[in-house]
Amino acid sequence: MLTREVISNYFKSLQDDICKQLEVADGEGEFREDAWQRAGGGGGRSRVIMGRHLEKGGVNFSAVHGDLPEKIGKALGIQAKEFFATGVSIVLHPSNPWVPIIHMNVRYFELDQEHWWFGGGIDLTPHYIFPEDAVFFHNTLKRVCDNHHPDYYPQFKTWADDYFYLKHRKETRGVGGVFFDRMGPEKGNKQDLFSFVQAIGETFCPVYIPLLQKHKDAAFDKQEKNWQGLRRGRYVEFNLVWDKGTKFGLDTDGRTESILMSLPPLANWVYDHQPEAGSREQQTLTLLKKGIDWVNYKEQ
Amino acid sequence: MLTREVISNYFKSLQDDICKQLEVADGEGEFREDAWQRAGGGGGRSRVIMGRHLEKGGVNFSAVHGDLPEKIGKALGIQAKEFFATGVSIVLHPSNPWVPIIHMNVRYFELDQEHWWFGGGIDLTPHYIFPEDAVFFHNTLKRVCDNHHPDYYPQFKTWADDYFYLKHRKETRGVGGVFFDRMGPEKGNKQDLFSFVQAIGETFCPVYIPLLQKHKDAAFDKQEKNWQGLRRGRYVEFNLVWDKGTKFGLDTDGRTESILMSLPPLANWVYDHQPEAGSREQQTLTLLKKGIDWVNYKEQ
Repeated sequence: MLTREVISNYFKSLQDDICKQLEVADGEGEFREDAWQRAGGGGGRSRVIMGRHLEKGGVNFSAVHGDLPEKIGKALGIQAKEFFATGVSIVLHPSNPWVPIIHMNVRYFELDQEHWWFGGGIDLTPHYIFPEDAVFFHNTLKRVCDNHHPDYYPQFKTWADDYFYLKHRKETRGVGGVFFDRMGPEKGNKQDLFSFVQAIGETFCPVYIPLLQKHKDAAFDKQEKNWQGLRRGRYVEFNLVWDKGTKFGLDTDGRTESILMSLPPLANWVYDHQPEAGSREQQTLTLLKKGIDWVNYKEQ
Repeated sequence: MLTREVISNYFKSLQDDICKQLEVADGEGEFREDAWQRAGGGGGRSRVIMGRHLEKGGVNFSAVHGDLPEKIGKALGIQAKEFFATGVSIVLHPSNPWVPIIHMNVRYFELDQEHWWFGGGIDLTPHYIFPEDAVFFHNTLKRVCDNHHPDYYPQFKTWADDYFYLKHRKETRGVGGVFFDRMGPEKGNKQDLFSFVQAIGETFCPVYIPLLQKHKDAAFDKQEKNWQGLRRGRYVEFNLVWDKGTKFGLDTDGRTESILMSLPPLANWVYDHQPEAGSREQQTLTLLKKGIDWVNYKEQ
């Protein structure tokens, strides 16, 4: 039976596996683990790497439970007393500006042992967009989604475009990916939905490590490093202003250091920065839009 | 009569005066002005300096009016159709980590030409707290407040402690200052309240420039610069997560570059950074608390 324990044990092993693969890919860095307990019930294992290619990366596992805060109940529109939540969350900030930032999350939520659902997603935030990388990324995600349901990729791709959006900049956070939530009984049987979530989690390494390998040794100059800092600034803006998970965590006394592990090691803000017309920086900005069909994208 | 024009003209001249004094204090930098129009009515003059001692500073004036967004009406608990808002907002990020960050805001708000109020405040965010500077800062503010009402300083000092608070860090943003809002007819006559707001605005240079002068040439090393980056990261967290003005502006399509001028040129995040016991950094953390009586503070 798919109990809480089975699901959270799977997420733990997923964390272990991803950390191992990332250490190999980095070649130098090792994850440091902080195990923590939540006063109200449960806890987690936060793991951080500060490596050679992965300048700052967090791979978090948690499984928490306890009284449902009123605020969450309201936000969910469900009356319940007890909650259980488990998942893995990842954000990696690479040193090299040609390597993209990546985020992945897979999660399971339960209320009063009665309501349950899965959620998650993967999205890619290149400092410089290489269309062929975005095409590879989206085709990989589409293949994984299509194995489970033909509607998943188109629906979850649009959901990611809408979710990872900086309204105040009129920019997407990056080239998107997939995002989904509230995948409960009305969306399929539990085993099938869990299999899909597992498949998403297991896509993380095969979809990211090749991009890391491809660009990690590419030469860059000061201007490109500076642009990386500006794009990281946008990442900070998204996470602190718009990301519901972050806000929610900070608002409900979550473990701050684990929540804010997603923030970059270094970020810049320059007043009214405008990249030169025709520059790579400016080309990247033109591609930070919703609704780009990356699966079938052809360079102009 | 104290019309909108009289008040906004005063704020314009305050902006001019402060910019002139800051250019002299910096010795090298000059403000660049961007005049902007708001589609719905009004506009502003954003001014930015990237100087020798003021690494990044913004001194903004705006006077905007138009249809009251429903969201604001609700937040204010007032039914009205038209609004008018004018004010000056300042954030300065100094290059030298021994010099504090400063923020000042003075503003006037009107609804349907019927309801009106003033608001504002000044608060200081040292990267390293020098108690004698905080004592000077608070005593100066207290003197200005006491000239207008004996209750102002104690009330507005507490308000600043409560407002400039990072709940998720259990830290104040800095050593506080004064913060006030909704200073309307029930709080005094318009001319008196305006005089108080003018006095606050005119305290900005005499309370900040001496601190800039005092520390601007002090030697610092890499570790101190790094700590400045971490403290700037906290400033970013406050402004993007908790500051009502910033959230509100971003949520209602304000001019993003003017709103986010408050963000530092460069900020760092280090996972779970813990300063050494007994270090200056750690001493600073112990003073980032609500309720410190800076006016009468004695070093232990």
